[in-house]
Amino acid sequence: MRRATDKPSRMWGGRFQKPPSPEAEAFSRSIEIDARMWRQDVWGSIAHARMLASCNILTPQEAEQIVQGLLELGQEIESGALQLDPGAEDIHTFIEASLHNKIGPVAGKLHTARSRNDQVATDSRLWVKDAIRLILLHLHYLQEIIVSTASKHTKTLMPGLTHQQHAQPVSLAHHLMAYFWMFERDFERLWDCQKRMDYSPLGSGALAGTSFAINRRFTAEELGFSGVVENSMDAVSDRDFAAEFIFACSLMMVHLSRLSQELISWSSPEFGYVTLDDAFTTGSSIMPQKKNPDIAELIRGRSALAIGNTAGILSLLKGLMLTYNRDLQDDKPLLFGTFDIALPSLDLMAAMISTAEWNVKAMRAASRGDFSTATELADYLVQKGETFREAHRIVGEIVLHCISERQPLEKMTLPQLRKRSKLFGEDALELIRPERALMAHNTEGGPSPKRVQEQIRRARRILRRHEPFAD
Amino acid sequence: MRRATDKPSRMWGGRFQKPPSPEAEAFSRSIEIDARMWRQDVWGSIAHARMLASCNILTPQEAEQIVQGLLELGQEIESGALQLDPGAEDIHTFIEASLHNKIGPVAGKLHTARSRNDQVATDSRLWVKDAIRLILLHLHYLQEIIVSTASKHTKTLMPGLTHQQHAQPVSLAHHLMAYFWMFERDFERLWDCQKRMDYSPLGSGALAGTSFAINRRFTAEELGFSGVVENSMDAVSDRDFAAEFIFACSLMMVHLSRLSQELISWSSPEFGYVTLDDAFTTGSSIMPQKKNPDIAELIRGRSALAIGNTAGILSLLKGLMLTYNRDLQDDKPLLFGTFDIALPSLDLMAAMISTAEWNVKAMRAASRGDFSTATELADYLVQKGETFREAHRIVGEIVLHCISERQPLEKMTLPQLRKRSKLFGEDALELIRPERALMAHNTEGGPSPKRVQEQIRRARRILRRHEPFAD
Amino acid sequence: MRRATDKPSRMWGGRFQKPPSPEAEAFSRSIEIDARMWRQDVWGSIAHARMLASCNILTPQEAEQIVQGLLELGQEIESGALQLDPGAEDIHTFIEASLHNKIGPVAGKLHTARSRNDQVATDSRLWVKDAIRLILLHLHYLQEIIVSTASKHTKTLMPGLTHQQHAQPVSLAHHLMAYFWMFERDFERLWDCQKRMDYSPLGSGALAGTSFAINRRFTAEELGFSGVVENSMDAVSDRDFAAEFIFACSLMMVHLSRLSQELISWSSPEFGYVTLDDAFTTGSSIMPQKKNPDIAELIRGRSALAIGNTAGILSLLKGLMLTYNRDLQDDKPLLFGTFDIALPSLDLMAAMISTAEWNVKAMRAASRGDFSTATELADYLVQKGETFREAHRIVGEIVLHCISERQPLEKMTLPQLRKRSKLFGEDALELIRPERALMAHNTEGGPSPKRVQEQIRRARRILRRHEPFAD
Amino acid sequence: MRRATDKPSRMWGGRFQKPPSPEAEAFSRSIEIDARMWRQDVWGSIAHARMLASCNILTPQEAEQIVQGLLELGQEIESGALQLDPGAEDIHTFIEASLHNKIGPVAGKLHTARSRNDQVATDSRLWVKDAIRLILLHLHYLQEIIVSTASKHTKTLMPGLTHQQHAQPVSLAHHLMAYFWMFERDFERLWDCQKRMDYSPLGSGALAGTSFAINRRFTAEELGFSGVVENSMDAVSDRDFAAEFIFACSLMMVHLSRLSQELISWSSPEFGYVTLDDAFTTGSSIMPQKKNPDIAELIRGRSALAIGNTAGILSLLKGLMLTYNRDLQDDKPLLFGTFDIALPSLDLMAAMISTAEWNVKAMRAASRGDFSTATELADYLVQKGETFREAHRIVGEIVLHCISERQPLEKMTLPQLRKRSKLFGEDALELIRPERALMAHNTEGGPSPKRVQEQIRRARRILRRHEPFAD
Repeated sequence: MRRATDKPSRMWGGRFQKPPSPEAEAFSRSIEIDARMWRQDVWGSIAHARMLASCNILTPQEAEQIVQGLLELGQEIESGALQLDPGAEDIHTFIEASLHNKIGPVAGKLHTARSRNDQVATDSRLWVKDAIRLILLHLHYLQEIIVSTASKHTKTLMPGLTHQQHAQPVSLAHHLMAYFWMFERDFERLWDCQKRMDYSPLGSGALAGTSFAINRRFTAEELGFSGVVENSMDAVSDRDFAAEFIFACSLMMVHLSRLSQELISWSSPEFGYVTLDDAFTTGSSIMPQKKNPDIAELIRGRSALAIGNTAGILSLLKGLMLTYNRDLQDDKPLLFGTFDIALPSLDLMAAMISTAEWNVKAMRAASRGDFSTATELADYLVQKGETFREAHRIVGEIVLHCISERQPLEKMTLPQLRKRSKLFGEDALELIRPERALMAHNTEGGPSPKRVQEQIRRARRILRRHEPFAD
Repeated sequence: MRRATDKPSRMWGGRFQKPPSPEAEAFSRSIEIDARMWRQDVWGSIAHARMLASCNILTPQEAEQIVQGLLELGQEIESGALQLDPGAEDIHTFIEASLHNKIGPVAGKLHTARSRNDQVATDSRLWVKDAIRLILLHLHYLQEIIVSTASKHTKTLMPGLTHQQHAQPVSLAHHLMAYFWMFERDFERLWDCQKRMDYSPLGSGALAGTSFAINRRFTAEELGFSGVVENSMDAVSDRDFAAEFIFACSLMMVHLSRLSQELISWSSPEFGYVTLDDAFTTGSSIMPQKKNPDIAELIRGRSALAIGNTAGILSLLKGLMLTYNRDLQDDKPLLFGTFDIALPSLDLMAAMISTAEWNVKAMRAASRGDFSTATELADYLVQKGETFREAHRIVGEIVLHCISERQPLEKMTLPQLRKRSKLFGEDALELIRPERALMAHNTEGGPSPKRVQEQIRRARRILRRHEPFAD
Repeated sequence: MRRATDKPSRMWGGRFQKPPSPEAEAFSRSIEIDARMWRQDVWGSIAHARMLASCNILTPQEAEQIVQGLLELGQEIESGALQLDPGAEDIHTFIEASLHNKIGPVAGKLHTARSRNDQVATDSRLWVKDAIRLILLHLHYLQEIIVSTASKHTKTLMPGLTHQQHAQPVSLAHHLMAYFWMFERDFERLWDCQKRMDYSPLGSGALAGTSFAINRRFTAEELGFSGVVENSMDAVSDRDFAAEFIFACSLMMVHLSRLSQELISWSSPEFGYVTLDDAFTTGSSIMPQKKNPDIAELIRGRSALAIGNTAGILSLLKGLMLTYNRDLQDDKPLLFGTFDIALPSLDLMAAMISTAEWNVKAMRAASRGDFSTATELADYLVQKGETFREAHRIVGEIVLHCISERQPLEKMTLPQLRKRSKLFGEDALELIRPERALMAHNTEGGPSPKRVQEQIRRARRILRRHEPFAD
Repeated sequence: MRRATDKPSRMWGGRFQKPPSPEAEAFSRSIEIDARMWRQDVWGSIAHARMLASCNILTPQEAEQIVQGLLELGQEIESGALQLDPGAEDIHTFIEASLHNKIGPVAGKLHTARSRNDQVATDSRLWVKDAIRLILLHLHYLQEIIVSTASKHTKTLMPGLTHQQHAQPVSLAHHLMAYFWMFERDFERLWDCQKRMDYSPLGSGALAGTSFAINRRFTAEELGFSGVVENSMDAVSDRDFAAEFIFACSLMMVHLSRLSQELISWSSPEFGYVTLDDAFTTGSSIMPQKKNPDIAELIRGRSALAIGNTAGILSLLKGLMLTYNRDLQDDKPLLFGTFDIALPSLDLMAAMISTAEWNVKAMRAASRGDFSTATELADYLVQKGETFREAHRIVGEIVLHCISERQPLEKMTLPQLRKRSKLFGEDALELIRPERALMAHNTEGGPSPKRVQEQIRRARRILRRHEPFAD
């Protein structure tokens, strides 16, 4: 284990009469945070060196030396043989200093026609592209879990809620599939974000390109970008990709927070719809009976951190004059922090859903006696010629009667119904059964088993279309 | 002028023994806010009535009566003949009550197979689609103004800044074009948002569709949606489109805040780069000499309101169980508030840019004596064989010398340069002129006039591609 | 009804060759928003005129004319005889123009030694002071309702939750009193905010005071401030009072959102602990059986708007150079918006709590069979000499046994207990009853009826101390 | 160096059939973050053990063993002899497990009558109290630097800005002192926060106190709290203190961001008012001439992170049902993150201000020819009997004339002035000199040297009153 510290840890200095104060250095040092981008930095530097050679700015030998040195450095960092120097200013400085240690002064030629401003913009974009790829993979997996869970529960009756009150019967499948579509929008949103940022800033220099005759398309291609950023000033001052990524992850976390809230409520004794696997719950240090849905609570809580990060990145960028300002360095804790929240939240949600024990009987039982089929009666009257408004009023009074008499709606008799409206016939009694109501809600996108199976088929088609991205 | 108040102002009530308290009604009433969606509500109701007829749920006569009534109502609201009743619960209730006043009880049939939950989701999506279309139109116009202004200034030298310090010379055209690309990303982001939300929730009922045999694709097509929302529970509880729209507008406002900050600084006596037209500045109530860039300040300030709205909408949605919860009503002040900030900000920025007087001489003068060509000297040494790091050090010392001797870099003599490095030759002196440096920065995306003209050509191609959307 | 429009609607203009564009005027006009401060503006102007006279800058006659004119204006606005001109730039301009209409050119002397910058800062502080006074009054009232409700329920057993799981028995009184203390902190926080902002900026001019020999302490006293702002530049650029007020209201709204969430859950069929009064619930347009806790949902939702406002005001102020910048105008929608959320939320919460029907039996029933007394068993073992860790393990196994055997903890027999630990004796069985556990939790601040009565007594003492502020 | 890992790393488990999944454990583990509270945890545990002994729940020998063990552990952690186990669930578990390793099973008795819920609430409050004390100390120091810098510059003329335009002359002292008062409000706000949270939650158990006859006032006093939290449910679910602390720091960061923005602008070539010490600036990796105000930029940027943290903590708490929910764990990254931003920002600002070189000549020069004394002319006319409105108009035209003739206001002749108003006399010419205007602005809180000296005296009195807190 050795440290790359015998070289100065800064890329500048000639014009200065004093070094930075240690406090200032500590405050501005970012290596603990940006060390995560070491792969992107090595990769970007290799591409840059090859480009310089292809443009005859470096000799083939110089480029070869640099590329070899960088490859070795990469292996050494990977294996732990080379440890990051926590005293270096940032990861870029550390890698250049390490290269200097390894191959001598020729290392200094790597910074030709490149500034830290375009270098850090390039590394950041490469990192976010990787991050998106990973999130999409795990999001896809969560969507698969949802679809496969839903496919077993198209007939599992449960109360559908509005205002946290029982509204109309739905199925567990239909309920879970609502999340499939939220996550599908997240998938697309992140994909659009990736597409929008897939341009190389490398070669934009500090802000104004360079007078070296470089080839920006060479590095763009080498690094897998679909093109180059069109304006060098925009290239170094743009952090839209960070803001868009953080927002897209935050909205995804909001979806996860909603699903978490459902799992928390559903696993409470009041609902009892689901038993979460022991692997995703924890106990109490004092109450031996407790089994707490901690993971779901943490996901819900972390959505708040992501929301704060969204407010943070927008506020960071607000009102900044072009081009690079040091404030931009702080996109990193927001970016990395959001990713570190999002990725495991996806995984843990997938694991919770796939291992959960669904208490089908409890859901079914909760669907009875809850008036959730009252709308069916109103619709019945409408089909018999009543206006909807009037039908609504009549059924409202029936419900009020049931409540005051503590009688479930399902137990109403025909004479009781006909006291309120002569339009009710024998067939009305059948409608009040929640299973029947579920079947009857057979419009496109509705909860009837047939429609949900259709939904699941569409979802599976979409998942197959994901595969090229998600693999 | 008449008011539609003789009908009850609520869509429900049969089950209740008391009316809402006046305070509760005032707190939950949204008509002052959602009145803006009256067009969408009328339009959505017409489509719904036609669909009900096409499915034989209404007779052709009933549908005709309803559609005619709604068309007349629309005209009356448009013309001011029918005034919104501030005491109605919301715009949906108001329109239904007004229809009842006009055509009698048949109006009650309009609510067949529709809930306020899918109705408000439909109206909101239609409104946001219109809002996006308008914003894109005005954004496109601002982009055109930027391109046409830039095209006159490809040779207008100005200092390019990093860290608010002079860094390297650029041109006004290049600087302005950086904003073109930011706004182009905004354009795409809003377009993606529009595309992602372009699905009809109508027919999703309260949360579970309906047992009426309706045709959701009919209304979707009638209303210009590209398809239907696939899951009825998602349809009524989703406000992703609001969150994405508000975020996209906020990031656009952040870009406008950056440009505003530049105009504010540039129009200060310290810079003096631009004189804003009197039409976009204001005076002081006490200081007769003041000419303040108020509009630019207000745009900058309003970006903060938009940022707050983004935090607000995400926080609103966090942790909500499915499906509809009344909290969702408050997406409206955030949506409308953000739109009301964004649209005039675009227009006023376009107007400020197009009427600004650019003080070309002041910019040029500022580019001299600012050491912004020091990098050129370093690059020169590199091309003569020095490593970049060493070249950087040598030039740093030259700068320090100039500062302590109060000598502009442009006034350095060859002997002075050669005292620092023997590699300097006669041609080095030429490089220090900012005009020369601008020309030399001729890499793709760079500030040289040739490259900026290329950039402008690409921008114009993009603007032409906008036209089908933006018209 | 007349309009004060024959005078120019701006306070400046001599130096300008063109008027503002209509769009710019509309964008910068604030009268629709700041009209709410008309009382403060009139009041502040009266104090200023009197001070000018007391310093011999106005003659007594001039001051008298101005003061009389302002008093009449105030009455006319109050009564509706004078309608605000929506085309005026702001409320300050409107009032000055109206005064001019009424008393002629002497009105122009009112602006002597005053700038709109110190004027608006003064009006805003006066408005916030009034707003805080009102909120404290209503907060106090909510606290009283909580205490009086709690005092009836010190023996109303209910499950206490952690992680939304049953943890240990508490009483409704104890649960509600937790909110008393949150609101008490809100009370103090707003009081501190009021105290911190209670200084007059009037006399600070545009930013640098004035060369007139005015007396700032005169106006401060006249307007009820406790002193003057010590630095004229701070006086006109400070909006800390707005930020602190908005934050304090947001945290109060967060408390209200937590209580709202409880009411929403408690009024669901799953809990059934509370029946909210019809006056604070609403029905569904489609489902006749629904009774929705809309008001509680709206309060929960509006807490998100307040959170957004907090992010907004901080972001608005970030990075602004001294002194006044036009951005500051947008503190107003944030201030007023937050107040408009907070005040009715307090009232409606008080009304909901005071009219709610508490289903004491349901709460009691929920406290049985929920293992919430398991901790008592563990504590029993500890008192018999077991370490807490070991006791915790033993009782954990007892719970697991009960669950797999579907046996309530209360039904365990002594032999069953002694199978797990020989330390259990007859008296252990008594401990498992939730009523007994409630009594036993008799430490300071604990849920035993005796301790809660003590808590209530302290709360009442605090409420009595509020009275001088809250009356 | 040894690790405390031979004991189970969890405080619970009896009821569980499976351990947490490794991913779930990693997601919920907080030791990397909450390790910072080890001192508070050890301290709180010692107090708890002593109290248990004083109440005869532990024997004196047991308590002695535990206290000794904890003291040794504290020393070992302090010295590095005992390294934190990154695999432990949290710092509380780690310390208890380490104690067990050291003193055996008696360690298990420490958890008697205590839950992790009240333990973590206690540790957090102790930590925040310490954090506030530290921040106040450094804030006080920054205020001292401002006062001592200001005291040297009461006659250093500089342009006072509104709307980033020259408005009226002020002095550097007056400008800097504006920040003194902002920071004084921060001081008070943090002090109020400290006072409001200074109550001990210890003894509140999981949520409902305990049946052990403990003495909460004993531990409160031992730990330096001024009292106990009055309600056990509030005690474990309250994080107001975190929200208030984070907000108060954010607003302080906003003040620092404003001052940073001034330093950034003032050190640009356009202003040139200040030269920051090399120790707080950095260079460019590519542009040898650059000297960037990085530290000021970073402070400005970090204010955005703090703003995000404020939005985050409020959003975290919103809508949580009582009592403890695992979401609350995530108050820690927000708390610690905000503190880590705030403390060094204060220090670095103090260091930048105290080492800055103030370019008095440049400020003075900027005050000339900027029309910033135009208000004086208007006030002159008012004193001669003109209304302010008319005077404002006349001087506006004089300014317009000067601009079109490129003539500084100071060079106007008496005949030129009299062409606009016959009221101008010889003495008017004197008024136009900025030094004269500065002297004349002699109202309380104004910029005249006399008034600023008065201000400084008041500030010094306040600083002396700080001392008991800040020492």
